[in-house]
Amino acid sequence: MSELRYDPLQNRWTIIATERQQRPRDFVTRREVRRDKDDCPFCPGFEDRTPPEIAAIRDEEGTLAPDTDPGSEPSNWRVRVVPNRFPALSPEAGEVEWSRRGIYECINGVGAHEVIIEGPDHDLSMAEFPLDLTLDIFRMYRERLTALMQDRRLKYALIFKNHGATAGASLAHPHSQIIATPVTPRTVQIELVASLKHFRDTKKCLACDLIKQEEAEGKRIIYDDTKIIAFNSYASRFPFELFIAPKSHSAFFERTTDEELESLARCMRDVLGRLKRALDDPPFNYILHTAPNVSADPIPPGYWRSLGNDYHWHIEVIPRLVRTAGFEWGSGLHINPM
Amino acid sequence: MSELRYDPLQNRWTIIATERQQRPRDFVTRREVRRDKDDCPFCPGFEDRTPPEIAAIRDEEGTLAPDTDPGSEPSNWRVRVVPNRFPALSPEAGEVEWSRRGIYECINGVGAHEVIIEGPDHDLSMAEFPLDLTLDIFRMYRERLTALMQDRRLKYALIFKNHGATAGASLAHPHSQIIATPVTPRTVQIELVASLKHFRDTKKCLACDLIKQEEAEGKRIIYDDTKIIAFNSYASRFPFELFIAPKSHSAFFERTTDEELESLARCMRDVLGRLKRALDDPPFNYILHTAPNVSADPIPPGYWRSLGNDYHWHIEVIPRLVRTAGFEWGSGLHINPM
Repeated sequence: MSELRYDPLQNRWTIIATERQQRPRDFVTRREVRRDKDDCPFCPGFEDRTPPEIAAIRDEEGTLAPDTDPGSEPSNWRVRVVPNRFPALSPEAGEVEWSRRGIYECINGVGAHEVIIEGPDHDLSMAEFPLDLTLDIFRMYRERLTALMQDRRLKYALIFKNHGATAGASLAHPHSQIIATPVTPRTVQIELVASLKHFRDTKKCLACDLIKQEEAEGKRIIYDDTKIIAFNSYASRFPFELFIAPKSHSAFFERTTDEELESLARCMRDVLGRLKRALDDPPFNYILHTAPNVSADPIPPGYWRSLGNDYHWHIEVIPRLVRTAGFEWGSGLHINPM
Repeated sequence: MSELRYDPLQNRWTIIATERQQRPRDFVTRREVRRDKDDCPFCPGFEDRTPPEIAAIRDEEGTLAPDTDPGSEPSNWRVRVVPNRFPALSPEAGEVEWSRRGIYECINGVGAHEVIIEGPDHDLSMAEFPLDLTLDIFRMYRERLTALMQDRRLKYALIFKNHGATAGASLAHPHSQIIATPVTPRTVQIELVASLKHFRDTKKCLACDLIKQEEAEGKRIIYDDTKIIAFNSYASRFPFELFIAPKSHSAFFERTTDEELESLARCMRDVLGRLKRALDDPPFNYILHTAPNVSADPIPPGYWRSLGNDYHWHIEVIPRLVRTAGFEWGSGLHINPM
């Protein structure tokens, strides 16, 4: 059973995932992306190689399929969600148990760790997907967030993608992941504190003001339509880093409208396609930051949530072209050569 | 000229280092560690390939040499400090100029970026250095911090080492670096806030209490003598991560005693040697966290410093065996499989 441990000096939780335990020598071998198509657990026809399906969008129905029994999952899915085989956190861990020993705090490994398989095609990536598949993927993000936010044990659900070995991918078949946690992650907490302070000072949303200033300056905008904007962040940590957000104020991704999702799908395909062409298919991560679960239980104490006015969902895209060294890890400052 | 830019949402400064600018295609080629001994700018005899020496410890004198002219630097140094050839920040950038445009803030690239060349031997690492060389390196850290903290423009100086390509090293010859900044880095700010809160609540230093609890539990200690302790952090982000600190309260590394430095040199050689043997010379970073410059000017506003009671210097050692993926970047949470 995994657990979460709190570092009081760094105000940071870490997931100690004992199921993933390795012997010291196992760390020496460098992990590569598994590219083998014949042996891919995410390809159609190999549904029995993953744990039972949590949700899916299938061609015939065009809607979310109900949970089905293992062994009886048809291969005609467009998007498929399954539990991670080596989950960092699990919904089966029972109630949240928060304990304290001296200055150390610990929580049992309650949460969720799901994989969103992005289409049946092993070799394509989101830059090449048809628009309707990209839209289905973001619809599935919304569905899974909505479902997970019903669980009062969970404070947060983070959706992210690792593309390429340098960015942490271990399987080549296109997929993204959700990890839901019983704590609000530190980066989100920092954004919440900054946004709340700005809201108290100005009665306005910080990200809304960011977007307005980017529109006024017009120098860093990469994609812009009536619903969604993408721009290079002013203080980008990484070359070609992108900030993507809805232009109308919206704290909770699970409340995104269909029109916004369509714009988002168009935007992501466009910007990922441009990164792929300009930089020869670079490794990258993208991360969806949405407001924490408003209806979560207040355990552990001192966690952060948003009332909606003071947060604005966004997606960060970070191409992984430069290495992060001791300075970045030690300071939180990055050196961006672009 | 480089500049620092502030991200108001993430409460984070980034150094935009335009001197290091590259064209998009340049990012595609993967950087490797330069191992060539015949062409090493850090080897004795090639002193003219670096910018003029800032400081050195030489065999004959055993003391810090004064600044010398380029071309007249003798090769009999044990430890040598030179400016980084591609500095992220520079002491020649003039006074600190803090400006604000809408919600964005910017500071000109004032600071320092120095390289500490750790001995004449190209092929050894700190795990194999003689003890007196290791001690000279830490003496040099103390000297450079003392010197840099005289500059009222600088809030902070971070000393770090990148060992191995995965950890960000670009040259094989053993060396560490100092980057001094006109702002207090975010990770240090977080530690200062947590330490100050603990001090106000308990009238005790948080790191002192951490060390006491580790000594009482006795499960994670790797090195322990009368002056210095090293232990695996309770909430380690990385397998084999180490926290190394003086056992007596001490906020400022530049005030470390000779006895503490001797213990520290012994400790670092011991723990780095054990990592090297157990994990086949893994890539790693270490980072020295000391309290910010107490005598810095209050520009930009809102920066953090310590009065001494509420901070405790320490060194983090992070072996870089697992990749950091989208989840870690997006959440600040890490998944540690150990």
